[in-house]
Amino acid sequence: MAEAVRHDKTARQLRLLSDALDSGRLGPVRRLVNTLSPAEIGNLLESLPPGQRSVVWGLVDAEDDGEVLLHVGDEVREGLIADMDPDEIVAAVEDLDIDDLADLVEDLPGTVIDEVLKSMDRENRERLEQVLSYPEDSAGRLMNPDVVTVRTDTTVDLVLRYLRLRGELPDHTDHLYVVSRRHQYLGRIALQALLTHDANTQINALLDDEQPAIDVGESAEEVARRFSDHDWISAPVVDDNNILLGRITIDDVVDIIREQAEHQALGAAGLDEDEDLFSPVWRAMRRRLVWLSINLATAFLAASVVGQFEGTIDKLVALAVLMPIVAGMGGNAGTQVLALMVRGLALGQVGASNIRLLLWKEVRVALLNGVMLGAVLGSIVLAWFHNLGLSLVIAVALTLNLLFAALAGVLVPVLVKRFGYDPALGSGIFLTTVTDVMGFFTFLGLATLLLMQ
Amino acid sequence: MAEAVRHDKTARQLRLLSDALDSGRLGPVRRLVNTLSPAEIGNLLESLPPGQRSVVWGLVDAEDDGEVLLHVGDEVREGLIADMDPDEIVAAVEDLDIDDLADLVEDLPGTVIDEVLKSMDRENRERLEQVLSYPEDSAGRLMNPDVVTVRTDTTVDLVLRYLRLRGELPDHTDHLYVVSRRHQYLGRIALQALLTHDANTQINALLDDEQPAIDVGESAEEVARRFSDHDWISAPVVDDNNILLGRITIDDVVDIIREQAEHQALGAAGLDEDEDLFSPVWRAMRRRLVWLSINLATAFLAASVVGQFEGTIDKLVALAVLMPIVAGMGGNAGTQVLALMVRGLALGQVGASNIRLLLWKEVRVALLNGVMLGAVLGSIVLAWFHNLGLSLVIAVALTLNLLFAALAGVLVPVLVKRFGYDPALGSGIFLTTVTDVMGFFTFLGLATLLLMQ
Repeated sequence: MAEAVRHDKTARQLRLLSDALDSGRLGPVRRLVNTLSPAEIGNLLESLPPGQRSVVWGLVDAEDDGEVLLHVGDEVREGLIADMDPDEIVAAVEDLDIDDLADLVEDLPGTVIDEVLKSMDRENRERLEQVLSYPEDSAGRLMNPDVVTVRTDTTVDLVLRYLRLRGELPDHTDHLYVVSRRHQYLGRIALQALLTHDANTQINALLDDEQPAIDVGESAEEVARRFSDHDWISAPVVDDNNILLGRITIDDVVDIIREQAEHQALGAAGLDEDEDLFSPVWRAMRRRLVWLSINLATAFLAASVVGQFEGTIDKLVALAVLMPIVAGMGGNAGTQVLALMVRGLALGQVGASNIRLLLWKEVRVALLNGVMLGAVLGSIVLAWFHNLGLSLVIAVALTLNLLFAALAGVLVPVLVKRFGYDPALGSGIFLTTVTDVMGFFTFLGLATLLLMQ
Repeated sequence: MAEAVRHDKTARQLRLLSDALDSGRLGPVRRLVNTLSPAEIGNLLESLPPGQRSVVWGLVDAEDDGEVLLHVGDEVREGLIADMDPDEIVAAVEDLDIDDLADLVEDLPGTVIDEVLKSMDRENRERLEQVLSYPEDSAGRLMNPDVVTVRTDTTVDLVLRYLRLRGELPDHTDHLYVVSRRHQYLGRIALQALLTHDANTQINALLDDEQPAIDVGESAEEVARRFSDHDWISAPVVDDNNILLGRITIDDVVDIIREQAEHQALGAAGLDEDEDLFSPVWRAMRRRLVWLSINLATAFLAASVVGQFEGTIDKLVALAVLMPIVAGMGGNAGTQVLALMVRGLALGQVGASNIRLLLWKEVRVALLNGVMLGAVLGSIVLAWFHNLGLSLVIAVALTLNLLFAALAGVLVPVLVKRFGYDPALGSGIFLTTVTDVMGFFTFLGLATLLLMQ
């Protein structure tokens, strides 16, 4: 319900915009678009089909172009950049922060990159090259080298005078960093502390050295986790020698957290989080085909199990009617266990020390659910087919398949992770393969053993 | 891979802790636990089975108790509170910020709430009551009434003197709020601006009235979206008359974003994000039973479709072997479309203006995939069963079911939302019901029409 508010608002903007576009009056479109923040414009562009997207993109204020490019997925970004002249691109990106520029630069045409580098002064060019030298999704790529540093051997008054002289501070500066002569990170001073302490106070006395610095090689995911565990607004980034290299701010962390959530939601269905809602049909098809082909292979595996029991089904067709129930219920029960395990693994809550206890708990839950649902399912089958043996077989098969589902739900994500893959993305397909295969096998196998004389 | 780092770290802590607990040496456990932040302690407690959880909880520094309670899910929290004396609870929560206290208060036993209220001074009690009067998941519940306000008709120097007199500022204060005599919100002053401008500067000159205030009734989700769209660190909350009521800070927004992601991931499997990894078996069973029962009902629906074609299957058992492939592939293809739509709806990118275009795109993607996968599937079936008719029927049935999957993938989430439910939670089960039913119906129906003479 909560979502409805925003949806309605954006949908209204979309409708207004779409009406204005249809009528060809671009003046109102331009005015409408430029009341929005760059993130909102990005969102809007993603919701437009390619033709309208180009038109609206052309109407965005040039000064917002760079920020808007930062706020769209890779696939949409590619299209927007293709719509721009080299000069426009250079103008759009040259005022961006170094970390944001680093984010974009690899999507730019080679000649444009040269232009951009040429337009920068030497210091900024070196900073950009430094940031680009760190791997994607590492703290080094997230950090902004633009930090305000002070020394310990000074006073509040001197720092205030320095700040007034310096003028504007980098966005989201909540602390100044204190460094040694060799630029090693020593601690931080809250802006608040500068404001609430007497002018003669020694900076030393205000130094907060409690917050650990982030190592430049730390993963973006770990950085996000530490920010949210500790309620940080910004954090210093250092190299192996504790030399201060830059700072990471919460706004970038919020973007990471959102991207991770999208990555998981779309990744579980075999899609990329950069997928454009309006991808060209051919491209969308090819991308989905990979996933569907894997699924086709696993479906054949399950079908080949059913194939082993053709003779049994031939004698009792009711088995064909009922077998999808056993397989499907296993898949659903396993997916529940999987969802809990994936979260536990992501939060580091599941490990060697408690995996056996978790397995034991899930086995008991599966057994209880299996017995209860088996009884219900057996009764319905008895009423439907008037075959006591069949109703017993399906009750037992369901219980067994829920047990397999619990085992697979706990163990598959742990194994996927052990092999170095993201359990949120790859586990579902393995799990349902297990529950399909075992569901068909136990149901048809028991029926062959017990009902065929 | 990125995740592995954190996992290893927490897993190591867990192993150390678990060894120490096993050996009964509680001294090392206490030392280990109290090096962690409250959020990390909360995470650790969630990963422990109930017995060990109680022991470790007893070792947490009393001053961290309140913060730890804020960082665990409802179900775990309930258990932890049950382990505490009323006095301990009062001591743990009385120093919390008002918004955090409001978060906890409904989980406390009635007698303890009275004690807590009694321990507060009148002003704070009234503030708490005010915050509690707003609905859960609204801006009113997220805000902290503790704000620093100034008037327009003053200078930087006077404000600095006032701040020094006042001493410490509320956490994450990055702006002071400027209000009228009647406490109406007029704008904000960045702490940065106070530091970088001359002491004689008029506050008026530094006033930033660009950032719109948040309405106290706005939903938590909308608040989170605006924070991330605009890179805010904090934002003022006002009532209908523009009276300043409090402020919301980014740390709470980060928690909301994380909770939303968990809510979606677990909700899609019919679970609650507050589910405890180590829920008592009985409770876990009951909760999952609801979801599995709904699934059982839909599975029967699909089975009853198969039941209509018993005669056909009886004549050609290969149909029973192959029918799960058609149904399952539809489910997978539909889930991909659904994942894209759910994201688009959540971001407000999908609405009346583009739904037809999206449907048309997805229909074309489905048709292309259907023809290609149908050809592959048909060829394999021909090689397996040497039955040209059967291989044609399955190729056509797969293509049709992928079309149904595309329609359901686009329309189901839109309809679920139209009826006021969260499309991320309820859509999957409807979608797979459609793809199962239509998969069985088209495959067995076509076989009956074309292969049965």
